[in-house]
Amino acid sequence: MIRAAIIGATGYTALELIKILLRHPDVEITTLTSRSEGNPHVASVHPQLAGRIDLQMADLGPAEVAARADVAFSCLPHGVTSTLVPKLLDAGLRVIDLSADYRLNSPAVYAEWYGQKHGDPDRLGKTVYGLPELFREQIRNAPLVANPGCYPTSAILALAPLLKQGLVAPRDIIVDSKSGVSGAGRSPKLTTHFPECNESISAYNVGRHRHAPEIEQVLSTASGRAVEIIFTPHLVPMDRGILSTSYSQPLGDLTEEKALDAIREFYSREPFVRVVNHLPGTKDTAGTNFCDITARMVRGRLITISCLDNLIKGASGAAVQNFNLMYGFAETTALN
Amino acid sequence: MIRAAIIGATGYTALELIKILLRHPDVEITTLTSRSEGNPHVASVHPQLAGRIDLQMADLGPAEVAARADVAFSCLPHGVTSTLVPKLLDAGLRVIDLSADYRLNSPAVYAEWYGQKHGDPDRLGKTVYGLPELFREQIRNAPLVANPGCYPTSAILALAPLLKQGLVAPRDIIVDSKSGVSGAGRSPKLTTHFPECNESISAYNVGRHRHAPEIEQVLSTASGRAVEIIFTPHLVPMDRGILSTSYSQPLGDLTEEKALDAIREFYSREPFVRVVNHLPGTKDTAGTNFCDITARMVRGRLITISCLDNLIKGASGAAVQNFNLMYGFAETTALN
Amino acid sequence: MIRAAIIGATGYTALELIKILLRHPDVEITTLTSRSEGNPHVASVHPQLAGRIDLQMADLGPAEVAARADVAFSCLPHGVTSTLVPKLLDAGLRVIDLSADYRLNSPAVYAEWYGQKHGDPDRLGKTVYGLPELFREQIRNAPLVANPGCYPTSAILALAPLLKQGLVAPRDIIVDSKSGVSGAGRSPKLTTHFPECNESISAYNVGRHRHAPEIEQVLSTASGRAVEIIFTPHLVPMDRGILSTSYSQPLGDLTEEKALDAIREFYSREPFVRVVNHLPGTKDTAGTNFCDITARMVRGRLITISCLDNLIKGASGAAVQNFNLMYGFAETTALN
Amino acid sequence: MIRAAIIGATGYTALELIKILLRHPDVEITTLTSRSEGNPHVASVHPQLAGRIDLQMADLGPAEVAARADVAFSCLPHGVTSTLVPKLLDAGLRVIDLSADYRLNSPAVYAEWYGQKHGDPDRLGKTVYGLPELFREQIRNAPLVANPGCYPTSAILALAPLLKQGLVAPRDIIVDSKSGVSGAGRSPKLTTHFPECNESISAYNVGRHRHAPEIEQVLSTASGRAVEIIFTPHLVPMDRGILSTSYSQPLGDLTEEKALDAIREFYSREPFVRVVNHLPGTKDTAGTNFCDITARMVRGRLITISCLDNLIKGASGAAVQNFNLMYGFAETTALN
Repeated sequence: MIRAAIIGATGYTALELIKILLRHPDVEITTLTSRSEGNPHVASVHPQLAGRIDLQMADLGPAEVAARADVAFSCLPHGVTSTLVPKLLDAGLRVIDLSADYRLNSPAVYAEWYGQKHGDPDRLGKTVYGLPELFREQIRNAPLVANPGCYPTSAILALAPLLKQGLVAPRDIIVDSKSGVSGAGRSPKLTTHFPECNESISAYNVGRHRHAPEIEQVLSTASGRAVEIIFTPHLVPMDRGILSTSYSQPLGDLTEEKALDAIREFYSREPFVRVVNHLPGTKDTAGTNFCDITARMVRGRLITISCLDNLIKGASGAAVQNFNLMYGFAETTALN
Repeated sequence: MIRAAIIGATGYTALELIKILLRHPDVEITTLTSRSEGNPHVASVHPQLAGRIDLQMADLGPAEVAARADVAFSCLPHGVTSTLVPKLLDAGLRVIDLSADYRLNSPAVYAEWYGQKHGDPDRLGKTVYGLPELFREQIRNAPLVANPGCYPTSAILALAPLLKQGLVAPRDIIVDSKSGVSGAGRSPKLTTHFPECNESISAYNVGRHRHAPEIEQVLSTASGRAVEIIFTPHLVPMDRGILSTSYSQPLGDLTEEKALDAIREFYSREPFVRVVNHLPGTKDTAGTNFCDITARMVRGRLITISCLDNLIKGASGAAVQNFNLMYGFAETTALN
Repeated sequence: MIRAAIIGATGYTALELIKILLRHPDVEITTLTSRSEGNPHVASVHPQLAGRIDLQMADLGPAEVAARADVAFSCLPHGVTSTLVPKLLDAGLRVIDLSADYRLNSPAVYAEWYGQKHGDPDRLGKTVYGLPELFREQIRNAPLVANPGCYPTSAILALAPLLKQGLVAPRDIIVDSKSGVSGAGRSPKLTTHFPECNESISAYNVGRHRHAPEIEQVLSTASGRAVEIIFTPHLVPMDRGILSTSYSQPLGDLTEEKALDAIREFYSREPFVRVVNHLPGTKDTAGTNFCDITARMVRGRLITISCLDNLIKGASGAAVQNFNLMYGFAETTALN
Repeated sequence: MIRAAIIGATGYTALELIKILLRHPDVEITTLTSRSEGNPHVASVHPQLAGRIDLQMADLGPAEVAARADVAFSCLPHGVTSTLVPKLLDAGLRVIDLSADYRLNSPAVYAEWYGQKHGDPDRLGKTVYGLPELFREQIRNAPLVANPGCYPTSAILALAPLLKQGLVAPRDIIVDSKSGVSGAGRSPKLTTHFPECNESISAYNVGRHRHAPEIEQVLSTASGRAVEIIFTPHLVPMDRGILSTSYSQPLGDLTEEKALDAIREFYSREPFVRVVNHLPGTKDTAGTNFCDITARMVRGRLITISCLDNLIKGASGAAVQNFNLMYGFAETTALN
């Protein structure tokens, strides 16, 4: 039985993580940390968990966490994460980090996009990016896994097979993404106040979203070329789900059928990628760890459409998939 | 041309008020007050108003408002309102107050439900309650009108005709109300954060909602009996609309048909109450100043169902209806 | 390994049933029936199931079903159900029926509310009502279980403990219920067309909903008194969830605290009923087999508030809970 | 007073048209046609209109319509429209057609995209496209105006200023559009059934949507070059609104600022186009006749973002704007 700690347990990714781990036959959640005052019971923070788990949250240090747990799922914000993770690792824990702090390889790029110096720059470039479909073998033995961002997972899974095989050009790729509101986290803000965002769709952070360099880096690594994308995120009035509509320029004699075949072949052994012929909607993947992908050729542009649940395959489901790889469990455990 | 000021112009009721008044041929909005820093242009606070009104908000005192306007629509929170309204009146303005501060007659009841002493207790009991369907004549010449609450309007319009005519008992009336989220105002809170309240319905403030004494007082005044209600508000995942399902005990030989006839007759000359035979939905009234009402008799209980747009007939539309009465304009001006 | 058939597999309850049963370690779904043309693959009807189950739907008769399965979950509409179930039972299957056909005890009451003669009247009054919290022992050995309606489950679970113990009066009970749209089924209709029901709440079938006699019958059976309710269902713009706000008259010296204690004690060993102190929202139970219940005393009326996921505890989750009881599995199997 | 007929009055565009025309001081709605049985009162089809207009729908022929009206707003489906419009014109009516039948110039293109021969091919190429921002003068005296499609209006208004002035390349323009569900009309279908499309976003008709050739034709006409677009529509879970995110290749030394200036200058005298610096959301334009546009330059691509209310500026508001031009009223009448 692996003892799991969740660091920063008040948000949506933590909630989903708890729900998934409660189904895992080989995991015991022993520790939930939070800086909330008064060590609240988890069910008072997440009423969905009433009667399902009997734990209080507590503000624990790395040593205290390590005394109670084997693995830490870190759900802290970026910035604070990189000050804590080194201590968790030093204390002997394996760490799956759901923040953005260990996804980028370059401290300079991190500083540029996140507006602060990285707290643990030596680990950048050496931390595995936890996307099993691309980096499964490195994940197995990693002490620290950087769990991918939600937008990046949707975009990378759609484009990596094509870029890796040289089927589309690495430049002028447009990723037009649409996300449900839970992706913005659990802290109330005007932009996510119900009467503001309900019944409305808008683009945000155009050309400035922090997931853009992440997508480019991983696609560049996977394909061995410098990939450039134009990334436009949109906020959609729904709880969950990301749909990415990506436009790339086909190379050679690529057809829609060949593109679909190439993607399907690439993922033929993947348990959580479904290459479909129909146009998928985010609801097809809601509450699951699946990413659905299809492709269309329109007027000389290849359009890939990919969708997933941003809190599952885009966050906590992927984290458990990584956990299963790290501890030698069947990769799909607790995820069906 | 009447010059209008809107006091506290950053919220949803102010926005709706501006949109309605922009259609009013005899009104010029001259003044928008707010304590927001930097005197923001109204369109930067309310992007819907871009190109429709060219005014900056400013933090103005009563004398400054009075120099610019004839009438003030006050959209401030309760508590602060009763400290300002006396000064606005003293400065010569007529005031339509959209807060709760002048709705109750008793300082003691106010203190009990609002948790603070009233700032202007002498005006309580002397201020007209701005529901034209019940108090039209008093509104015409009033210097100050207390615009009704959204829930109260829906409940009172459905029940007043029955209570006034002694058709239902004044006790054990259950008002089960359902409201869209805009009723909670524009300040972000966890309960109105999109992923919390979307796809969920819940009751809140059961037995403790401040609109309960308001409903009781007005129904008691209208009917001449001590009316007691049990009020249960619910939060519904939609922007706008209130539906109140009220259960009362019929007296005498009341039938469904007689109840409908009595309500229909009561409102036969009202421009904004529609007594309908079908079961109305809030969408039927969205964006309008209508309140739709019907009735059903089930197993010896009379059920009235009433709905309206909480921001229009439940707030800003009613305010303009009151304004039209106060200034002698056709009551429906700008409201069709 | 129990072989399961789902009869009428194109709707929402069938979809949820499949998703739950896929998690059940002791069940193999062998058969999905439908009259859809061309024996469609289940994933073409339910894209959510792509890659999760590889079965085609087929229009099979009772003998064919019996050759492939041990148990049949019947998701057919009422009326047609009672013509098929006898044949399924005769063919040796145990049946869990999710329609309304076997819930009422009286053929006359059935005919009155469903507008047709019952096709299998002899089984009425002899079929167990599949609510484990009230009828667990009878369910264990039943050949046929009538799975409860969604509204009835929410209302009965809240009121049965109080009525059974004589804590509230059996008359003049008001059940004001609010349901998500999936409760209306998967056949497109104007009332469930997105732009009609989105952003709106309305009551429907007031005094005429078929779940009213079901609630009364089961509460009467459970309490040993003739229970009368006034039932008002409402349609809420959300996918899932039912919240029932029920108003009853307390007897004796009942207080809010005593009521809560009585309900809590009544369900102290139930795995799927959570008696909570806070006001629950439907989202707390979404995707789970839980029913959350609380109580408030307001002006001499006891208000119970209960909520559940209409497709899980209100349909398919309850069906699997019944299945677990019928086959001797742990009652919570596949439901956590 | 102009007497107006609405042909095909049961859908959403007809409802919005009625609501707008009721505010028009110079219009009397005299005629509502429908093939609905029994000549229903308009309020029984559109409960929102109860008490606002007292007309029955009737199945009237062209001569009957011409006897009652001066102008016909036709809200019929494509195909049937082109069989009726010639008769309405022959009967002496001026016609504003909200269908697609008179938007394309070429019978061959029409046949290709709409799958049927055009019923009135001689008028194709001679009918003005009712987008006042591009074709105001031709609209004034037109007997027949082809009211633009909702997606085309959003795309054309954003791109026309750039293409006309040669600021972006006419090829490889990507229009990624997102629409609320009312755009799909009022006929219930599985794809617009609430539990199917709520809480989901999906692309549809990729590369096959009929608005693609319309956008290309109008942009080609406006710019004098052969414009090619890749159009991807998406369905968003909201009632109303279209947001189009368009990606074009800048020519010369175009910057973001220059692009914004060019668009702003182009529309400097337009009452219903707002060129804004912020990223607009569809809610900013909901219920109004505005189209909001902005632009961003990202990695060498110009991104324009435009939004509008698909039922107002994308349909019925535009129709009234055209009507005002045709009859010499102030262009904004009834649209503020």
